[in-house]
Amino acid sequence: MPFLNLDIHRLKQKYGNLTRKNAREEFINIQPIQRGGILTPEAKKILLEFGDGYSVCDYCTKGRLVSIKKPPIFDFLEDVAAFMGVDLVRPTAGSRMAQYIIFDVMTRKNDTVIIDSTAHYTTYLAVEKAGLKHEEIPNSDHPEFKINEDDYARKIEEIKQKTGKLPALIFLTHVDYSYGNIADVQKVSKICKEYGIPFVLNGAYSVGIMPVNGKELGVDFLTASGHKSMAASGPIGLLGMKEEFAEKFVKVASIKGTWSGREFLNKEIYFYGCPPVYGLPIMTLMASFPRIVERTTPSAWSEEVKKVQHFVKEIERIETVKVLGKKPKEHPLIHLETPAFYEVSKKHKRKGYFLSESLRKKKIVGIFPGSSKRFKINIYGLSKEELEKVINAFHEVARENGIPVN
Amino acid sequence: MPFLNLDIHRLKQKYGNLTRKNAREEFINIQPIQRGGILTPEAKKILLEFGDGYSVCDYCTKGRLVSIKKPPIFDFLEDVAAFMGVDLVRPTAGSRMAQYIIFDVMTRKNDTVIIDSTAHYTTYLAVEKAGLKHEEIPNSDHPEFKINEDDYARKIEEIKQKTGKLPALIFLTHVDYSYGNIADVQKVSKICKEYGIPFVLNGAYSVGIMPVNGKELGVDFLTASGHKSMAASGPIGLLGMKEEFAEKFVKVASIKGTWSGREFLNKEIYFYGCPPVYGLPIMTLMASFPRIVERTTPSAWSEEVKKVQHFVKEIERIETVKVLGKKPKEHPLIHLETPAFYEVSKKHKRKGYFLSESLRKKKIVGIFPGSSKRFKINIYGLSKEELEKVINAFHEVARENGIPVN
Repeated sequence: MPFLNLDIHRLKQKYGNLTRKNAREEFINIQPIQRGGILTPEAKKILLEFGDGYSVCDYCTKGRLVSIKKPPIFDFLEDVAAFMGVDLVRPTAGSRMAQYIIFDVMTRKNDTVIIDSTAHYTTYLAVEKAGLKHEEIPNSDHPEFKINEDDYARKIEEIKQKTGKLPALIFLTHVDYSYGNIADVQKVSKICKEYGIPFVLNGAYSVGIMPVNGKELGVDFLTASGHKSMAASGPIGLLGMKEEFAEKFVKVASIKGTWSGREFLNKEIYFYGCPPVYGLPIMTLMASFPRIVERTTPSAWSEEVKKVQHFVKEIERIETVKVLGKKPKEHPLIHLETPAFYEVSKKHKRKGYFLSESLRKKKIVGIFPGSSKRFKINIYGLSKEELEKVINAFHEVARENGIPVN
Repeated sequence: MPFLNLDIHRLKQKYGNLTRKNAREEFINIQPIQRGGILTPEAKKILLEFGDGYSVCDYCTKGRLVSIKKPPIFDFLEDVAAFMGVDLVRPTAGSRMAQYIIFDVMTRKNDTVIIDSTAHYTTYLAVEKAGLKHEEIPNSDHPEFKINEDDYARKIEEIKQKTGKLPALIFLTHVDYSYGNIADVQKVSKICKEYGIPFVLNGAYSVGIMPVNGKELGVDFLTASGHKSMAASGPIGLLGMKEEFAEKFVKVASIKGTWSGREFLNKEIYFYGCPPVYGLPIMTLMASFPRIVERTTPSAWSEEVKKVQHFVKEIERIETVKVLGKKPKEHPLIHLETPAFYEVSKKHKRKGYFLSESLRKKKIVGIFPGSSKRFKINIYGLSKEELEKVINAFHEVARENGIPVN
């Protein structure tokens, strides 16, 4: 590695003026993974007070984050469990850590598990890390990319025939990160119950965005993402589970120092003793929680879905533009196919960058820089007025480049 | 689980006014695990702009946090590697996650490892999680609790005789969390080199606090904690390593979707694809970095050590009070034994709480509530004036309770 000069003036210049233009009020941010994690005013308010690394430890008397009463983390974990419709919740460093833990605890090396083919990349990584074999539930490919929930029964039978035993775990992504398709969870949970196989639902794009109740859905495990979908600064995830699995997951250390005899009987081994969320991750999640509850009522969600469908109708007025995924579209994570913009990019001096740059001039940010053929956006939580601005911006960019808006 | 009423008024009341009195300017905070993680003014300044969960992803074009150029995460990881004296750094959800990964990657189940008996509890948990056997290096027990670094050689021989092979990994805690003893790292690294055994140093209480250079110390792995010792809001840790181990650690996913053929060749499997530090953890660490470099120069550190020794001298003027750990004391994490305060607590109407409550009245916070017999404090980074206030507060509480101050 080359010699690096840690000259203080260079460092101050480089790290002393970190700014983020996209966070400024003048912009509407439609970045696909950011909308659900934008802080509420209540979360912003506590940033300074709880900003220090171990800020929640002021009154930690039991040596366990999950037991802290002031601030009310203990109570919050009960409230958020009720909100998710699970018996027990443990915070994690994101839904990805929750997935790693579930696969680790619930399977043995070389077991076979079933996952949906629209799963998040971290699901595949968790499967690999746990040393598992997997089978995917296919999807219908372009343009809807939808999975057929009934395929889970067929796949279970297939694995049973091939390996002589049932899969160790069934995994479903509630809302996938590529197309924003909402899966029919109850169909899968019914199948899992019939076969008696534990069922994991990844709610990283649903919990905190739309109504989700693990018990109503019939799941054994439900993972959630605070920074993705619950207005938390994070990274923070939630691992929700049914009571019957609790003992396995909240296992405390059993190691005993060979010389010292030291033991750690209050430290949960799968969660690093204390889960790594001690400062702003847990505090911003908590501060945002009342708004999260409000924004995920059935009536609030139905307003969001109306906005989504209005947007789809308006964006598809641009010639050749198509929204991918299941129709009618319900989730605000939207994958657009835009061949007309792509044609423009071929001749444009800024190439594919013309699209994100043109939108930026109209104060819309969050399109993947350089993409003009296919890209994702997210319109969650935009006001009607903001949504119209986004629609108009797209329409204008189309017209400015000679693309008809029907 | 009992029915929980998610009544929005109750939630707003409970989570709508989260405050942290200990963070207020009127108080001097000497909480043992908080001093090194208190945000710098530069870190505080960026809280709002980078508060959203995925704030660093605005210009992520490669799908890898470690490759992001704007904000300058890629450059920062090179700078912080140079600062730590290692070849490669990966961010993690704390030094604890870094330890779990090291034990996981570098050992096989049932291997034997050596750890020091003053290691942090997360070291023991990492050993257990990886399914390892361990042997502890003893310490001298009360009052110094110091380890004898030469014991590592003896212990290696012992294990070799008992198991027929060398230990898989040698682990040392640079500064232990109970007594703040600074270990003689070079003694151990020399032994490890002689035997050719990989050597891990946990720098959670040293990197960012005092001068630490992995190469000078001769370590193969160096872990650090942003929220504990580098003025980061976190949770964030750093896993530093020598080049020769890099390939094993930055292994990307090799899984391939059985139906879809999906692959994830840019996602590092041990770090959840992208390490969970996407928002404020990495940004506050980066913003604080120039000050971290400044505060850990040999001359800045020698000023800290002088303050520590002044404090020890002054606090031990209180009759019966003793600072535990190696003398002369060098590290600002200080473990006090205070039998005279304990005697007071027996007759005091507030029992052991009298001490933290009395200090609080004098604007000193951070003593473990209820402790009066033995407790830890940390005086890192206090100005001379603040330090005098802390000393005077202890002296006054002593005198107010009839304890002589010599």
